[in-house]
This record gives sequence, structure tokens and C-alpha cells, in this order.
Amino acid sequence: MTHLEIEKKELLKGLGLMQGIAGRKTTLPVLSHIYMEWKKSSLFLTGTDLQTGIQEELKATVHEEGKASVSSKKLFEIIKELPEQTIHIHKKENHWIHLKCGKSVFNIAGLDPEEFPSLPAWQEKSFSTLSTKIIREMIEKTVFAASNEESRYHLNGILFTQQKAGGKEFLRMVATDGHRLSLIDREGQVIQGAEKGMIIPKKGVLEIRKIVGEKDDKAEEMGVCFDNTHAFFKMGTSLMVIRLIEGEFPEYDQVIPKNNDRKLIMRKEMVYGSLRRVSTMASERAEGIKFSFKKNLMELSSYHQDFGDAKEEVDIQYDGPPIEIGFNARYMMEALQAFDTDDILMELKDDGSPGIIRPHTPQTPSHQLYIIMPMRI
Amino acid sequence: MTHLEIEKKELLKGLGLMQGIAGRKTTLPVLSHIYMEWKKSSLFLTGTDLQTGIQEELKATVHEEGKASVSSKKLFEIIKELPEQTIHIHKKENHWIHLKCGKSVFNIAGLDPEEFPSLPAWQEKSFSTLSTKIIREMIEKTVFAASNEESRYHLNGILFTQQKAGGKEFLRMVATDGHRLSLIDREGQVIQGAEKGMIIPKKGVLEIRKIVGEKDDKAEEMGVCFDNTHAFFKMGTSLMVIRLIEGEFPEYDQVIPKNNDRKLIMRKEMVYGSLRRVSTMASERAEGIKFSFKKNLMELSSYHQDFGDAKEEVDIQYDGPPIEIGFNARYMMEALQAFDTDDILMELKDDGSPGIIRPHTPQTPSHQLYIIMPMRI
Repeated sequence: MTHLEIEKKELLKGLGLMQGIAGRKTTLPVLSHIYMEWKKSSLFLTGTDLQTGIQEELKATVHEEGKASVSSKKLFEIIKELPEQTIHIHKKENHWIHLKCGKSVFNIAGLDPEEFPSLPAWQEKSFSTLSTKIIREMIEKTVFAASNEESRYHLNGILFTQQKAGGKEFLRMVATDGHRLSLIDREGQVIQGAEKGMIIPKKGVLEIRKIVGEKDDKAEEMGVCFDNTHAFFKMGTSLMVIRLIEGEFPEYDQVIPKNNDRKLIMRKEMVYGSLRRVSTMASERAEGIKFSFKKNLMELSSYHQDFGDAKEEVDIQYDGPPIEIGFNARYMMEALQAFDTDDILMELKDDGSPGIIRPHTPQTPSHQLYIIMPMRI
Repeated sequence: MTHLEIEKKELLKGLGLMQGIAGRKTTLPVLSHIYMEWKKSSLFLTGTDLQTGIQEELKATVHEEGKASVSSKKLFEIIKELPEQTIHIHKKENHWIHLKCGKSVFNIAGLDPEEFPSLPAWQEKSFSTLSTKIIREMIEKTVFAASNEESRYHLNGILFTQQKAGGKEFLRMVATDGHRLSLIDREGQVIQGAEKGMIIPKKGVLEIRKIVGEKDDKAEEMGVCFDNTHAFFKMGTSLMVIRLIEGEFPEYDQVIPKNNDRKLIMRKEMVYGSLRRVSTMASERAEGIKFSFKKNLMELSSYHQDFGDAKEEVDIQYDGPPIEIGFNARYMMEALQAFDTDDILMELKDDGSPGIIRPHTPQTPSHQLYIIMPMRI
């Protein structure tokens, strides 16, 4: 009678990965479902919101092949509570499934699995192989700078682009919301055919990070390929399909300042701690902080019209003329968190021009930069 | 110049205890403030929402006595971010305070401290001494059953009442929302003059639990006293003032069923696990589960009109005729969590009468009971 047997732990893992995508509020009921297909020795789960789709292959014992579509959220709720035992499933009439585990018996309502939208097709052989660790790191150093404003749709993602310079090939990721921009290059990572670049939406990128985060030690490599409309990511037993953002990414090369000749070297942790303190008195809306630089000294100050003011001095390395400039405190703190080095290098021109932040590494040229627009304080 | 010195850690601890009370949205600006008064070797912090007030005594070095009133939330935000060092405070003109710690300097806006409402007066000598551990335990075993409905104001708290029976004196706590009732007695705890009972609002009770939770190992005893309108709790360096709920608590003695002669003994953890699983298919609104009892067997079942159904069997000790009865799953699970024994005793009459749950302890008579109303399934 049982069509399918699967361990509770295995099914729960698969369903957990779907919860960010399927099961959201949706006008199309089947999109709140997951599609289940069991064949050979696997149960395949699929969830999609039509922008982002995940397919997960789980180990199972299949007695009779079949398909079903049931509520993603409800199934997850149920499986979470089951004892750590084998789950027995069989398909019933009317698209329902019967599920038994230990002494628990569930009959779960379903929809016709044929109504479930199929994921766009991909070709096994076209995947490029990348390092999971490096891709995750590149995502973390850029995604926070992408825009959340729906009206700036073409900025709602990360640009993935393949570059060549000085005889070397590297993968570049760039994200910007118009107020700041984060860019990182890494050599040795190649996505075939991505010279023109593709914009992968923030939501999809965050799902990738979630999946590779949970699979940390298991899969050192991941596969990536794309066509005109979608990118495909293969990570262990997970396959993710993400609809690309259409539109042109800004000409970011042109906004990188070239003449920022005031160089300031500062301890990242010290500046970060100061920013946290002084930003408590910044206005909630603008979040502006005044940066005053003198010889080997930075003073941060803020003013809140209801609560008062704050200031703090920080020792830095600087040997130029005094300069005062305003920056958004949060944009600055998020930038600092994206750098791995103990010291960072800030490059300024004047109080009306964007600043650049780079890791301070005397040995090698930097493969990471952050641009931040100034603000009036 | 410094009027007051206090360690960051000490001030943060005090402010943390205020955050549940002061700083909430309020039409009276001064209630979002804390009142600070420093004298001798203490800084006293006071926060109140006029229903619940806390006064906290902190160790400090006072150079010049003074008072201030500043935003509770903003001060907490600031102090949280400071380094673990000594904070130097002085009072400025216009009710502002100046605060310095390490390299950070803050000027914080204030209001006239004289405008801060004073707490109701209490008398040191009228406090009864109770065990902190026992009071916390009694609160935890009752508070969840109090009503959250504002229209049932007199049920929005716990009844504290002093009782005498069989020559023994004991403290009783009772809470009910009309659908269930939780009662616990503990010998040897005496609140002088509380024979008539007082209703302490849920919010205040939860603040007490929070404070004694955080002071676990420090203060084994607490003091309690009350007048016609307020109860006062002294816990270590904290003093809490809670406005009593006016009105009559229901005659709970009359609703305790006397003729529930069907006795069922069950393993608490087994039933709890089953309830969690079967309740996934209960309707979100009514949360009803059907309990079917046969000889030494209980079957739990549920039905959700959109998602399907669930059932599970649990071995119990029962030797009476079959009975089917509906209960709210959450009320039942919350009850089980309030019992410490491995086994519980359920006493039923029929499918239309309230059930009783008691700890199953053959040795001693039970000092705890829970009443739950049946529901139609």
C-alpha cells in the first residue's frame, strides 16, 4: 500500500529549503503548494513563486512512482512535529495523500499535480563550475548594497559579470542602490558566456546564500548556467532557477571616482564601534553623521532634534588638510562589515564628492571597493 | 564637574529592567522617560506607565546630588553601545544631561524631573517575606490562563489570596479566562492581610517574573505588601508597584466539578507530543481536537476543512466506559506544560462537562488543578 518511504529528517530538510519560496501569500493557490514527484530512489520536491524556483532531490524508497501537490506550509508544520522515524506515504483518490509515521496518521488535501507550473528547462552540460565558498563570500560583500525600492527594479539585484584584465579572467559582482555601490572581483571563477553580465534579483541571491550556508561542508563546488531569461544554480542536491532582471545595469565604471587623493587609513573595528555609538543620536530618517578629519584624527558627530547630540574622536592615519564630510551612518557600517582586513583605506576628494573605501592591504592590489555618496549635514 | 559616576554594566542592567514599562507609546511624554535621582552612593531609576512602576537602586559614586528625566529608550540605546567603562554624568541647564564614557560624549535632552509622576507611597515595615522561587513557580503555573480580552478586565490578572484549611495556611493563585482555570496552592507562604484576595494584572505579574528571572541566584526572598489600590514587590534592588484590578474575581470554588468520576492517568510527554502533531490539522480559530477514550487507550483526532485530517493513538490507564469529548488543543498543551509530574490525572464526567487535570502523585494530595471547558467537535 505504501508508495514511498522517506526518513523524517530527510523530508524535513527538503521542506525547510522550500519555505522561503513556496507557501507565501499568493493569488494562485497552487503556488502555495509544493510539487512532489517520487521515482527510482528519489523524492523530488519543487517550489516556485514564478520568479524563483527550487528543486530538491531527497533519498527515498519508492515502491510505486507517483506525483502530488500539497500545501508547503502545512506539510512542513506536520513533518516538523513527527518523531524521528520513517514516513510512509501513499497517493489517494482526489489528489489527497495519506501519510503515516509512528502512531500518527494524516490525510492531506492536494491539488492536481499536473497544474503545478514546471520550471524552465536547463541543459546539464552547460553548467560552469564555481567555488561555493567564494560565491557565497562575493554575495555577502555586495548584496546589502542592492536597492529595495521596487521603482528601481534594475537595481534590485546583483550584477554577475565575467571580466578580463591584465591577461587574467575574473568574476565580478556589483550591487548599488544609487547611494552606495559595492564591487568585488575574484580571479579563477568563470561563468561561461557571462561577459555581458546578468542581473540576479536580491531575493534569489539571498535564497542561494541560504542554501549554500546550510550545505557548508558538503558541497565545495556549485554549478551555474543561464539563458536569456533565467539563471540556474546547482548546489548539491538542490537546483535553483531564478528569473533574471531585465534592463540595463548602470555604467558603474563611470561613477568610480578617479581623483580622490586624500588617503585615510583607519582601524575597522574602532570606527565601527564609534559609528554605532554616535549613530544613536543621528536622525532616524537621514541617519547622517558628520566626519571631521584633521591630522591623524577623525571626529564623528551627530545631532538629533529631539534627543540631543553625540561626538567621539578616533585616531587614524592621515596627513592632509582638514576636511568635513557627511555620510549615512548605516551605509558606512554595512560597508565596514563587508571588509575582512583589520584596516581600511578611505579615499576622499572634497565634501561634495563620493568617497571610496577599500581594504588596506599593502601587498596586493585590492579586488574590492565601496563607493558612498556624501550627504549634507 | 562630574556629578555622578556609574559603571556601564550597572546602568545597563537597571535600564534593561525599565524597558518593558517606560518608553512605550504614550500620550504623556514624561512617561516615555525614566526618572533618575542620585544621592548618597546610589542612582535610583524609576519608570512607570501609571499602572506598573519600577524603581531600581544602582551602585554609583555621587559627587553632587541631583535629578533628571530623559528618554528611557534613547538612553538604553546609547548605554548599550558604550564600552565597559565608567560613565561620567553631570546635569546641565535646561534639564539636559552631559554623559561621557571613554572617548564618547553625549548631550541628552531632558524634561523637568519634577514633572515625573511619583510612585504611590509604601511602608517598609508592612512587607511580608516570600520565597522568590516559589512565587515565580506559582506565577508560571497560572498566568497563562488569565484572559487577554480587554472587555473581561477582572479576568486580566492573577488572584493572590491567603487561605486556611486543615489548620494550615497557604498562598493560593488562581487565573481564568472563562474557558479554563489554573489554580495552585503553596504552604508556608503568607501575605499578611491578603485573605480577601487581590487581583494583580497580567502585565505586572509578567514584569515580576522577568525581574525575578534575571535575579535568580541573587535574591532568595522577596517582600510583598499592598494597600487598597496597589501591590508592592521588593526584589533585591528592585521595587515594583502595581495597580490592582478593581472588581470581583469569579467564585471559582463553585466551578470546580465535584462528580468527575472517570479517572484517566496519562504520560504527560506522550500526550503533549501527540497534541502537537494532531493540532496541526485543527482549525486555526477553534483549535478543537476530539479525545476518544476507550479501555487503556486514547485517540486524538482533528479535521481541517482545507488541509485534511489527523489522528493518533496514545496508551493511557483507563478502565471505564468509552467517552468522546472535544477540547481546545492549545489550552490542553499549555496546561500540560504547567505540570511538573511525569504523569497527570484527568477527571471527566461526560462530553458536556468541564474536565479536571491534576498532577498524578499518589503520595500527597494535589496542590494544583486545572479546569478546562469542553467544546463541540
